[in-house]
Amino acid sequence: MVIEPAVRHPGATAALLAELGPQKVFTEHAVRLAHAHDNTRIAFLPEAVVKPADEADLAYLLRLANERDVPVYVRGAGTGTTGASAPLRGGWVVSLTHWDKIEIDADAGMARVQPGAITGKINEEAAKHGLFFPPDPSSVKHCTIGGNIATNAGGLRAAKYGVTRDYVYALEGLLPTGEPVKWAGPVRKYVSGYNLRDLWIGSEGTLGVITSAVIKLVPLPKSRRTFQCAFRTDEDALRACVALLRTRVVTSVCEFLDTQTVACAEHRAGKPVFSRDELGPDGPATPAVMLLELDGHPAQIAEESRTLREWAGEHALVLRETDDAAEAEKLWHLRRTCSQAMFMHGNAKLNEDIVVPLRSYLPLLRLTREVKEATGLATPTFGHAADGNFHVHIMYNREDPDQCRKAEAGILMLMKAVVDMGGAITGEHGVGLAKSPFLAIQHSPAEIGAMLAIKRALDPRDILGRGQIFEVTNIWEHTPIKVTMPWDKH
Amino acid sequence: MVIEPAVRHPGATAALLAELGPQKVFTEHAVRLAHAHDNTRIAFLPEAVVKPADEADLAYLLRLANERDVPVYVRGAGTGTTGASAPLRGGWVVSLTHWDKIEIDADAGMARVQPGAITGKINEEAAKHGLFFPPDPSSVKHCTIGGNIATNAGGLRAAKYGVTRDYVYALEGLLPTGEPVKWAGPVRKYVSGYNLRDLWIGSEGTLGVITSAVIKLVPLPKSRRTFQCAFRTDEDALRACVALLRTRVVTSVCEFLDTQTVACAEHRAGKPVFSRDELGPDGPATPAVMLLELDGHPAQIAEESRTLREWAGEHALVLRETDDAAEAEKLWHLRRTCSQAMFMHGNAKLNEDIVVPLRSYLPLLRLTREVKEATGLATPTFGHAADGNFHVHIMYNREDPDQCRKAEAGILMLMKAVVDMGGAITGEHGVGLAKSPFLAIQHSPAEIGAMLAIKRALDPRDILGRGQIFEVTNIWEHTPIKVTMPWDKH
Repeated sequence: MVIEPAVRHPGATAALLAELGPQKVFTEHAVRLAHAHDNTRIAFLPEAVVKPADEADLAYLLRLANERDVPVYVRGAGTGTTGASAPLRGGWVVSLTHWDKIEIDADAGMARVQPGAITGKINEEAAKHGLFFPPDPSSVKHCTIGGNIATNAGGLRAAKYGVTRDYVYALEGLLPTGEPVKWAGPVRKYVSGYNLRDLWIGSEGTLGVITSAVIKLVPLPKSRRTFQCAFRTDEDALRACVALLRTRVVTSVCEFLDTQTVACAEHRAGKPVFSRDELGPDGPATPAVMLLELDGHPAQIAEESRTLREWAGEHALVLRETDDAAEAEKLWHLRRTCSQAMFMHGNAKLNEDIVVPLRSYLPLLRLTREVKEATGLATPTFGHAADGNFHVHIMYNREDPDQCRKAEAGILMLMKAVVDMGGAITGEHGVGLAKSPFLAIQHSPAEIGAMLAIKRALDPRDILGRGQIFEVTNIWEHTPIKVTMPWDKH
Repeated sequence: MVIEPAVRHPGATAALLAELGPQKVFTEHAVRLAHAHDNTRIAFLPEAVVKPADEADLAYLLRLANERDVPVYVRGAGTGTTGASAPLRGGWVVSLTHWDKIEIDADAGMARVQPGAITGKINEEAAKHGLFFPPDPSSVKHCTIGGNIATNAGGLRAAKYGVTRDYVYALEGLLPTGEPVKWAGPVRKYVSGYNLRDLWIGSEGTLGVITSAVIKLVPLPKSRRTFQCAFRTDEDALRACVALLRTRVVTSVCEFLDTQTVACAEHRAGKPVFSRDELGPDGPATPAVMLLELDGHPAQIAEESRTLREWAGEHALVLRETDDAAEAEKLWHLRRTCSQAMFMHGNAKLNEDIVVPLRSYLPLLRLTREVKEATGLATPTFGHAADGNFHVHIMYNREDPDQCRKAEAGILMLMKAVVDMGGAITGEHGVGLAKSPFLAIQHSPAEIGAMLAIKRALDPRDILGRGQIFEVTNIWEHTPIKVTMPWDKH
């Protein structure tokens, strides 16, 4: 169901159209609908979609929005999972996917990119120079670098390489009032004045509009080795993860899939991931799985592989490994299909990218089971185990009001417990609309007060992303629209 | 000369003393004088020095300061080089050197530290677990982690490991109004709400008081190899640096010392660093020098060493190398003594930690010579060449008004040109008082306006660090006091 805005601004939209013209300002329903939602598919119809030709267009739009009190939502490809780019209060959507220039400075190990550049494409260009941009959200083939920066995107390789924030040298853009600014430059150190660069990163488009970024590229690792291990129980797998960190081997990928998740993937594939021979006669019906990768110098990988084999001998039932890319892809298949496979348990999921400290890994496992028992809903969980960043899924059927209520209760139970453990309600997706009900669980009134004071200081008319992050929106009360998005194809 | 504050707050100070007691509030002249300055030795006398026992004391102090309009300056060991902790407007200095707890969580690769913990001491504790905290400002044996975070300190190893910001997971502390807050937690990913953690980092104590930090520790490298190379000219050395980056070998240290700097060190030592035999009969009187380190897996170092030798064969006159720690220390001697040795050219120096993009390395060299010619003052320059972070020194005699004027003119000439090159007025020292005259060169009015809006939003009564960063103070107009500080001994 498409949600129409409560307040409209026909005069301001006409003025915008008159100034920028119909090549840049789109008011057709189909275009507005296509820009009404991100990957949550909860659609809020904007009044116009704008594709500015240059910074001057964007500055004009922001000044007009400030004068006429029109909310503005800036977006890239729409791969976000929280509704952060959805035009909650209508107004204007600014799409920047056409601003997609990529300039590699290989000597400096940097790239200057426009916000609409697709992250996977940046990596293709960087690879020509033996370099890469490590952050790799699962949408990497579709998502834009602007969206990655706006949400401080993470991904699988964060285990070794960190997140988007660790790879941004400088940002240029516009303040919510339309004034151009730049935060830092194409340099590797910079401590002049307050760090608004990092304040913008992860602020989900609510504190400024990014028009250009200088990002860090690092040398591609010389080689890579992939490991897949099976464990008797979820507890065994997470205990093994702690033991792995203790070896001081830093894996580039360290993914955990709980038995519920593996069972979903096996059900979808119609066959088990590991044979009875491998798991042993008294092995589990379905094991927990870890997927690991080492990258770097071959001699270092050889040495670390020996450590991993010893570690697996102590903790795992099965160890598979390969340094062949095609074989590695087979080991990755389970991880790539598990998310879709969960829909065997319901047509809707709440996917919560929570984070917990290392000491709370086993308590988190117990918690996901308690949520499962309390709600009667499946809670398949996988995630970036070296980072404590677990994706806990609560599966339900949207048409079943009882299941909806239970899913909502389950998610609240999860969030409160995670924060009590010293963890976080979101590790890489951001708040947007989806996590807004949990913000007051995570943050004290003084903390939220400081955030809102900053929002008012930089955006006094509340133009950018109005209603996002700080106002509670229970997205489970809204029905997603049925729409095929580019990444749905496979 | 000690500068007395223009405005005094005897009533507020008496109220503070009455509440906290003489064990925590010090009004003796000697204590106030000892907390009147940092390593710039430009002394502004505070009205009281406060060593709070706990967060409640600190919260009381901040609330009282807000009520009575008393400026508050928070400090650690005072190793700063910009006057950022100096009580410019008097008021109260809060010293946190006694809050120095260090708790290592080796499994998680984290430490929870209080702001007064000495960075070198953190590394001693971490080393017991095979871990280390990479940022290494030259004051590492004396400086506190709170000060490192407040200034986003860099250091030599930033070439490979980055700066303090890259190693801070979470901060706890008080808003300028005295309310307790925490930004993130002991977790490796966190994107909930606005990122005030990184806004605090590098804000030089003006946006909040840090009472606790969770920092990242990484495995100590297995081995290390040190290289010292001599080059015919400064240009040859910096061209070689660019060529080195092109090899994709990431050195953990990449220091450049120009011929002026090397000449100072040789003059002090009374002997040349390299023999005539080494430099060759038509070699330079004084060479430029680079000091490099590789760290990591021995096999990787062996391979990278081969690349470095090829590179040196092409670019350098002399290559020395060692993997023996005592021998390495001999290679480091030049770098460790060069800063003091510069005082052969004058009893005062302006030390500017500017940063330039890679493409501007050679233009920067030309610039330092133009400043030398225009002022008639020595401009010895060394720095972190992989980062483009060069310390340009202008040497002069404080008693000579003509030299003072020329030094001031030279520094302005330097700063304007550096910003024109796309660089920055400070890469690791921060702004404090020393760089405040250059802030408007670096930043547009809109940028400074946004920074000040944030300052007003978080600190409406302008309590913390009043007058720092944003008000112009020409520190060269003040005479440093004569005082021996702990790091002066050697």
